Amino acid sequence: MTKKIIGIDLGGTSVKLAMISQEGEILEKWSIKTNVLDNGTHIVPDIISSIKDKLDLYQLTASDFIGIGMGSPGKVDAQAKTVVGAYNLGWSELQEVGKAFKEAFDLPFFIGNDANVAALGEQWKGAGQGNQNVVMFTLGTGVGGGIVVNGQLVTGEGGAAGEIGHLTVDTQYMTACTCGKKGCLEAVASATGIVNLTHRFSDNYEGESPIKKDIDNGDEVTSKAIFDAAKTGDLFANMVVDKFVDYLALAVSHIANTLSPSHIVIGGGVSAAGEFLREKIAQQALAYTFPQIRQTCQIVLAELGNDAGVIGAAQLVNTSR
Amino acid sequence: MTKKIIGIDLGGTSVKLAMISQEGEILEKWSIKTNVLDNGTHIVPDIISSIKDKLDLYQLTASDFIGIGMGSPGKVDAQAKTVVGAYNLGWSELQEVGKAFKEAFDLPFFIGNDANVAALGEQWKGAGQGNQNVVMFTLGTGVGGGIVVNGQLVTGEGGAAGEIGHLTVDTQYMTACTCGKKGCLEAVASATGIVNLTHRFSDNYEGESPIKKDIDNGDEVTSKAIFDAAKTGDLFANMVVDKFVDYLALAVSHIANTLSPSHIVIGGGVSAAGEFLREKIAQQALAYTFPQIRQTCQIVLAELGNDAGVIGAAQLVNTSR
Repeated sequence: MTKKIIGIDLGGTSVKLAMISQEGEILEKWSIKTNVLDNGTHIVPDIISSIKDKLDLYQLTASDFIGIGMGSPGKVDAQAKTVVGAYNLGWSELQEVGKAFKEAFDLPFFIGNDANVAALGEQWKGAGQGNQNVVMFTLGTGVGGGIVVNGQLVTGEGGAAGEIGHLTVDTQYMTACTCGKKGCLEAVASATGIVNLTHRFSDNYEGESPIKKDIDNGDEVTSKAIFDAAKTGDLFANMVVDKFVDYLALAVSHIANTLSPSHIVIGGGVSAAGEFLREKIAQQALAYTFPQIRQTCQIVLAELGNDAGVIGAAQLVNTSR
Repeated sequence: MTKKIIGIDLGGTSVKLAMISQEGEILEKWSIKTNVLDNGTHIVPDIISSIKDKLDLYQLTASDFIGIGMGSPGKVDAQAKTVVGAYNLGWSELQEVGKAFKEAFDLPFFIGNDANVAALGEQWKGAGQGNQNVVMFTLGTGVGGGIVVNGQLVTGEGGAAGEIGHLTVDTQYMTACTCGKKGCLEAVASATGIVNLTHRFSDNYEGESPIKKDIDNGDEVTSKAIFDAAKTGDLFANMVVDKFVDYLALAVSHIANTLSPSHIVIGGGVSAAGEFLREKIAQQALAYTFPQIRQTCQIVLAELGNDAGVIGAAQLVNTSR
């Protein structure tokens, strides 16, 4: 029987785990709650214990696996196998994650940033269809992403590559971003960014719009409500969506023009707006993209959903060892 | 004796050739004229014959080398080892360059786009100091470049990666570019781009300036004259240079935020403006760059000059075989 891989996707509320074949098929998946108490000191022991239980249950040993891969929030040092600054886990101090796994299992262990690792999953078995050059934009509360070049995750100097959400796309209004700089994609094209845009446009909009009415009343407006209103023809919501798309298309073109990937994958919660959003981005990105590259670069929706993390973690083992 | 590499830098007026050690030391260099007559059909035979003469002269054979590398203008297919659309060579039709070298020498042959290959040279033995993640901007008549990630040249789908000159940075004026799209870096931050900016600013400038006077008289203004005037304190020239720098810094930040390279190298004819230009770009790029990446990414001037092409061609052999 061919050896398997253990993939781990560490999140702020749950840890997703899976046994995965070397070809990327999920053979078994499960999850445990993330216990962030006591500065997150229980997290790694909980994961290790859960994996040991699962191996016992199936009467498996380390020799049945080629390695363990993991995606983690925070700043990940892939060489040192450490994590720092994952505040949603209680990990403000440096965590020696690799050391703990090395002591627990006689197996190679590899770790990467969660958004990067999810991109590797989509590249390998999702919307990227195994192509060697694939980039993913994850549109959620913030904007994350990951870059795969020549089949390898790009981590860059200091592990900070793939900060797609901090591409400066708004040079006119220079909207403030939580990172400390201004004009970031994240400040105008995330779930919170689109709400920023709604406020920018509402001051000067004279027409009727249920969305504008909610803003004027001080009610909370969600990105989903804005996209739903745009789909039903609300002119104000469409103004907002068009600007959101324009910023995103500009960022997509920067990736296309520099890296010429075969696929740019749009994922994350905001991408639930689906084909309506994808088509608008693809159309607008044409104007910003080098003619030759327009013909080879497809803008596609993510396909793996929550499984992208564990599948990417498995591929991290395949591509790193 | 350790084996050597032959590096070839094919240009529109001359072909530079060199024998290079596997460590990147130029052992012998020479050049021949590029004969673009008869649709450039003499070029490859001339290069092959020149290499054979040199081997005879030093009583060397194929067994003294590990391979031949080449940088070429035009659209290069690294797999098929062909070139098409190198109009300055007379090569509008597909050229089977690899096939000709395979017939002439019993040696591995590798080919890449000339701007990409020069970037590989600077990454390996020049301003990149052998670091694994280095990107080069070549500011000449146009803007070219090359991207090295994990020590490998990035070619992307269809070989079109590294089109740094066609990053859309001017979303306000959307200056027309020769590529057919608008707002490209090349249209505002090359030797011709800076002249475009001079015309944009001269209409609304009221003060005294020798540069503005030349424009109003319809005289030709060069990028060198603009930089020289800026250095001596000409206010109009400094307005132009500041805008030029702002566009370039934005493009530099896009590369920094996505790839987090250790070095971004500024080369090409316009970079003769030297430290005056480099410092301005580095300063302005800070405002557009993710805080963590500011600390790890250096903006540096190219160091190899005309040797970057042959040295990069040698490294293409090292990294491809």
